Amino acid sequence: MKKFIFCSLLGVILCAAAAAQPLKKSEIITDTVQSTILGEEVPVNVFLPAGFDKDGGRQYPVIYLLHGLYGTNVDWATTGHMKNVVDELIASGELRDVVILMPCAGHNDIRNVQNGYFNMPGRSYEDFFFQELVPTLEKRYHIIGDKQHRAIMGLSMGGGGSTVYSQRHPDMFSSCYSMSGWLDEDEQPEDAPKDKLYIVRKSVHEHSAIAFVENADEETVAKLKTVKWFFDCGDDDYLLKRSVDIHFKMNEKGIKNELRVRDGWHSWEYWHTALRLALPFASRNFDK
Amino acid sequence: MKKFIFCSLLGVILCAAAAAQPLKKSEIITDTVQSTILGEEVPVNVFLPAGFDKDGGRQYPVIYLLHGLYGTNVDWATTGHMKNVVDELIASGELRDVVILMPCAGHNDIRNVQNGYFNMPGRSYEDFFFQELVPTLEKRYHIIGDKQHRAIMGLSMGGGGSTVYSQRHPDMFSSCYSMSGWLDEDEQPEDAPKDKLYIVRKSVHEHSAIAFVENADEETVAKLKTVKWFFDCGDDDYLLKRSVDIHFKMNEKGIKNELRVRDGWHSWEYWHTALRLALPFASRNFDK
Amino acid sequence: MKKFIFCSLLGVILCAAAAAQPLKKSEIITDTVQSTILGEEVPVNVFLPAGFDKDGGRQYPVIYLLHGLYGTNVDWATTGHMKNVVDELIASGELRDVVILMPCAGHNDIRNVQNGYFNMPGRSYEDFFFQELVPTLEKRYHIIGDKQHRAIMGLSMGGGGSTVYSQRHPDMFSSCYSMSGWLDEDEQPEDAPKDKLYIVRKSVHEHSAIAFVENADEETVAKLKTVKWFFDCGDDDYLLKRSVDIHFKMNEKGIKNELRVRDGWHSWEYWHTALRLALPFASRNFDK
Amino acid sequence: MKKFIFCSLLGVILCAAAAAQPLKKSEIITDTVQSTILGEEVPVNVFLPAGFDKDGGRQYPVIYLLHGLYGTNVDWATTGHMKNVVDELIASGELRDVVILMPCAGHNDIRNVQNGYFNMPGRSYEDFFFQELVPTLEKRYHIIGDKQHRAIMGLSMGGGGSTVYSQRHPDMFSSCYSMSGWLDEDEQPEDAPKDKLYIVRKSVHEHSAIAFVENADEETVAKLKTVKWFFDCGDDDYLLKRSVDIHFKMNEKGIKNELRVRDGWHSWEYWHTALRLALPFASRNFDK
Repeated sequence: MKKFIFCSLLGVILCAAAAAQPLKKSEIITDTVQSTILGEEVPVNVFLPAGFDKDGGRQYPVIYLLHGLYGTNVDWATTGHMKNVVDELIASGELRDVVILMPCAGHNDIRNVQNGYFNMPGRSYEDFFFQELVPTLEKRYHIIGDKQHRAIMGLSMGGGGSTVYSQRHPDMFSSCYSMSGWLDEDEQPEDAPKDKLYIVRKSVHEHSAIAFVENADEETVAKLKTVKWFFDCGDDDYLLKRSVDIHFKMNEKGIKNELRVRDGWHSWEYWHTALRLALPFASRNFDK
Repeated sequence: MKKFIFCSLLGVILCAAAAAQPLKKSEIITDTVQSTILGEEVPVNVFLPAGFDKDGGRQYPVIYLLHGLYGTNVDWATTGHMKNVVDELIASGELRDVVILMPCAGHNDIRNVQNGYFNMPGRSYEDFFFQELVPTLEKRYHIIGDKQHRAIMGLSMGGGGSTVYSQRHPDMFSSCYSMSGWLDEDEQPEDAPKDKLYIVRKSVHEHSAIAFVENADEETVAKLKTVKWFFDCGDDDYLLKRSVDIHFKMNEKGIKNELRVRDGWHSWEYWHTALRLALPFASRNFDK
Repeated sequence: MKKFIFCSLLGVILCAAAAAQPLKKSEIITDTVQSTILGEEVPVNVFLPAGFDKDGGRQYPVIYLLHGLYGTNVDWATTGHMKNVVDELIASGELRDVVILMPCAGHNDIRNVQNGYFNMPGRSYEDFFFQELVPTLEKRYHIIGDKQHRAIMGLSMGGGGSTVYSQRHPDMFSSCYSMSGWLDEDEQPEDAPKDKLYIVRKSVHEHSAIAFVENADEETVAKLKTVKWFFDCGDDDYLLKRSVDIHFKMNEKGIKNELRVRDGWHSWEYWHTALRLALPFASRNFDK
Repeated sequence: MKKFIFCSLLGVILCAAAAAQPLKKSEIITDTVQSTILGEEVPVNVFLPAGFDKDGGRQYPVIYLLHGLYGTNVDWATTGHMKNVVDELIASGELRDVVILMPCAGHNDIRNVQNGYFNMPGRSYEDFFFQELVPTLEKRYHIIGDKQHRAIMGLSMGGGGSTVYSQRHPDMFSSCYSMSGWLDEDEQPEDAPKDKLYIVRKSVHEHSAIAFVENADEETVAKLKTVKWFFDCGDDDYLLKRSVDIHFKMNEKGIKNELRVRDGWHSWEYWHTALRLALPFASRNFDK
C-alpha cells in the first residue's frame, strides 16, 4: 500500500495517513513507483496543489521537474525550495493548479552508483520513465495526460534529460525548459577511469541534444516545432556553451526557441530563480 | 467605407487602402466609430496582430486600453510605444494574439472640451462606450465577444475608467488592470471655476471606484469576485493613496486583488513598463 | 578566546580553528558577544567576504541584518539562504565587499522568553546593541565604523528594529531597509495575557516608527533626511498598512523614502528576494 | 558662441538662451563641436542633470552614449527616450548625477554619407573623438575627466564603438556596456558595391573587438582587466553570436565580463530597457 510522507518547509519529515479530504494547503509528499524494469522502488517527490483530492474527480496538468547529477528526488523540495515559489505563483495566477512530479534518477555517490536519465548498461531508466513512471503516476494523481497539459523541466543533467525526452517524445510535452542544461558532453580520454560517472558522461555524449537537432530530418524538425523550447543558463556557468549551441542549431533549422543568459553560475540560487520563469512558461503553454 | 490609417513607429502617418490579405506584421491603425449618442465620429487606435485578416474567420480576444486626462486615442501608440512591448510579448508567448482597442475619450484642452469616461451633462460617453463603441468594433474586428476573452486597462483617468466600467459590468470583463488609477476625487471647493475640468473631477468623485466597493452589497461583491483586479501605482505618484485604498477596501470585502507599488511617478515611463505586467495578466486570465 | 563556528548551507555546524589566512571563499561563521548588560553570551552570525583576513589591515563597511519574531541569529543563513544572494551580488559588483552581522534578538518560544530589539523590563537589548554589540564586533571585524559605511536592514520585527534604530541614531546609519516591517502595533486589549509576547507587542506600540515620524520636530526631521529609507512589503502581507503609513507620513514631512509593494506575503520567499533590492541599495549608499 | 537647443520629449525643438542659473530640472540640449579634423561642426545631444550650472564649480562624471548605424545624435533622446529612464534612476539613487554625451557619428543615408566610429578614408572620426570631442566637451561641461569617472556605452555600431574605444583606451574608461554590439563583421564578397556602407562594414571587420581580445598579449590583457565589461544582446538578435563570442574569448584570457541575453531583438525596446541595467552598472563602477 502506498504511504504518503509529508515534507514540511523545515525539512522535517512527518508520516501521515493518506488524506481523506481535499488539501487545504499545497503539500509536497514523497511517494514511490515500483519498477519491474529497474528492479527497485523509485522515490518521487510530488507537489500537490491546495484543493487536491486523491479521491476526487478533478484532473490536473503535470510538470516533470528533474534534478541534476549528485541529486535525488528531494533536491527541489529541500535545497531548491520550489514550494515557496510555486505557492506564490499559483496565488498570483502566473501558474495554474498543477501537479509537479520530481522523480529520483540519481544518487550522491556518482562514481559507484549509476545515475542518469538515459538507458545504460544494466539500468534502463528511460524505459522505466516512459513505460512505468509516467503511466503509474499520471493515473495515481489524476493527470489529464495529453501533450497539451504536460511539461518537463530540469537543472543541469535534468535539463539535458528534459530536452532529450522532449526531442524523442515531442508528442508528449507541450513545453521544455532547460536550466543550465547538460546538453552534450565531449568524448572522454581513453585513460579515464571506467566508473559509473564515465558511463553517465558517455551517455550524455551519445544522446547529445545538440547532435539530435543537427541530425534531424524534415519530419523530425516538424515535430520539434510542436514543442515550446526554453534554454536558460548563467553567464558564469561552465555549461553555458551548450545552451548557446543548441539555440543557434535550432535557429538554423527554423525551430523557435527562447534563450536567456542571466547573472550567475551552476548554483541553486540560479535554479531557484529560474522557477519564476520556467513555471509560468509551462503554464501559459498548457491548453486550458 | 472604412479607411485604414497606418501609424508607423516614427509617428509618420500614411494612408493606405484596406489590407486585402492577412497582415504579415502587426499594425496600429486609426479607425473611427460614428456615434449617434455623442453626435460625432470618435477616433480609435487599433492594434492588429500579425495574421489578422479583416475578411477572415479567425476570432480574437480583445483588450481595451484607455488613455488619461489630456490624452487621446493616439497616446498609447505614440508616447506610450505600446507596439514595441506588444510585439515582443506576443513573440515570446507572454501575450496571446489579441486585438487592442484604444478609443478617444479626451482632448488636450481639458478646461474647454469635455473629457472623461462617465456620462456628463451633454456628453454620455459611458452610454456611447457600451451601446455603440463595443458592439461596433467587436463586430468589425472579429472579437470573440464574451467576458472570458475581454480585458480592460488604462492609465490615470483611464485606470479609473477601467475599474468603474468593470465594477458596473463584471459580466463583461475577465480582468481589469489600473495603472496610477484616478479612482476617486475629493469634493471640490465651492469657489472652483465651473469649467469642463470641474465637471470631469466631479464625475470621478461621484463615480468613485472606492466608494463602489465600500457600498457593494453581498450580491455585488459576488459579481466583483468574478473579475481579476490589478492595481499598479508608483511610489512617488500623487495618486498612490487611491490604489492603496481600493486594495484595502477590496480585501475587507474578500475580493482578491493584486497591488504593486513600483519605483516611479505619474509618467509614461511608468505606464510603458506597466504594459509588461498588464498584458500578460490580461492574457493569462483569458480562456483559451 | 573567540571561537569560529562555520555554518554550512545545509545547517550543519562544524567547528574549526580561526583562519590564519585570508579567506579564499566567503563564509558564514557563528560568533558570540559577551554582554554585561544582558548578562549572557549573545550569538551572532557573521558573513565574511572572500579575502577577509582577521589579522589583516583592510577595513570593511558593515550591514546589520536583523531577524524577525520567532527568529534567531541563524535564520538568515539557513532559511533565508542569504549567502547565495550575497555571493552572486558581490561577484557581479552590485554589492561591495562587506561584513554582514546577524545578531540574535530572539527565541522561538516567544511567550516565555523575552524577544525584541527595544529595552524591556529586565532586558535592555537596545542598550546592549549600541553599547556592547556594535563596538565589540566592529573592532573584531575591522569595520570602518562611520555612518557612511554602515547600513541596517531586517524583516518584520527586524524591519521595525532597523527603522527605529535608524531614527534614534541617524548619525550612525547611511541607509535603512525595512522588509515587511513591524513598524507599529495597536494597543492590546486589557484582558490579553501578560506574557513575554505581550511585552514585545507593547514595546512595538510604544516605540512606533510611525509615531516617531509624526512627532518629529524640525531638527529631528533634518536628521532623518540624512538617512536613505526603503520600505518593502508584500501586497498580501498583513503588515502592509504599516509600510504604507510610514511612507505617507515621511512624505508629509518631506523625508524622501522608497516604497515597494511586490507580490507576496509574510514569507521567506519575499525576504530572500528582497535581498536583491536591499543589498545593492545599502551598497550604493555607502561612500567609497 | 554656443547655442543651446532644448529638445523636448515630444521631439519639438525650441531655441533658448543659455541658462544663467542651475537647472531646476534635468534637460537634454543639442550642442556642437567644431572639428578641424573632420572639417565640420558635429552635433551632440547632452543630458544635464538637475542642479547643473554651466557657470558653477561642481564637477561631474560622464557617460558617452553612442547611437547605431542609420542613427544620429538625437536618437537616444527621441526614439530611445533615455531621459525618462535617466530621471527615474537618478531619483531612486541607482544612477549618480552625471552628464551624458550623445555625439553624432552617423547619418541615415548610409550608402552615400560616411558613418562609423573608426578612422576611414577621408574621415578620421576616432581621431576627432579622442583629440577634439572629448577634451572640448569635458571642459565645457565640467567633467571630472579621469578613468574612474568616465564610462562608455552604445547600441549596435555604438556597442562596437564603445568596446573598441575601451580596448584601445583602457586608461580612459572605468566601464563599457555594449548593447546588441556590432563587435565584428565578416569579410564582404568581392562583388559587393563599394559604397560608404561597404567602407563602414570593412572598418568593423578590420577593427574587430573579438580579434582584439584574441590577439591581446599579456600586457594588453592586464590593461583590459582594468575595465568593467558588460555585453547585453537579445536572444532573437541577428548579432547575438558576436556578444557570445567576445564573452568566451574574454573568459579564455581571464578577463572578467558580464553577459546577458534577454528576450528581444535588434530593437529600441531592447535598448530602452537596457538602460536600466547599463546606467546603474556605469554608476557603481565610478569612484565616488
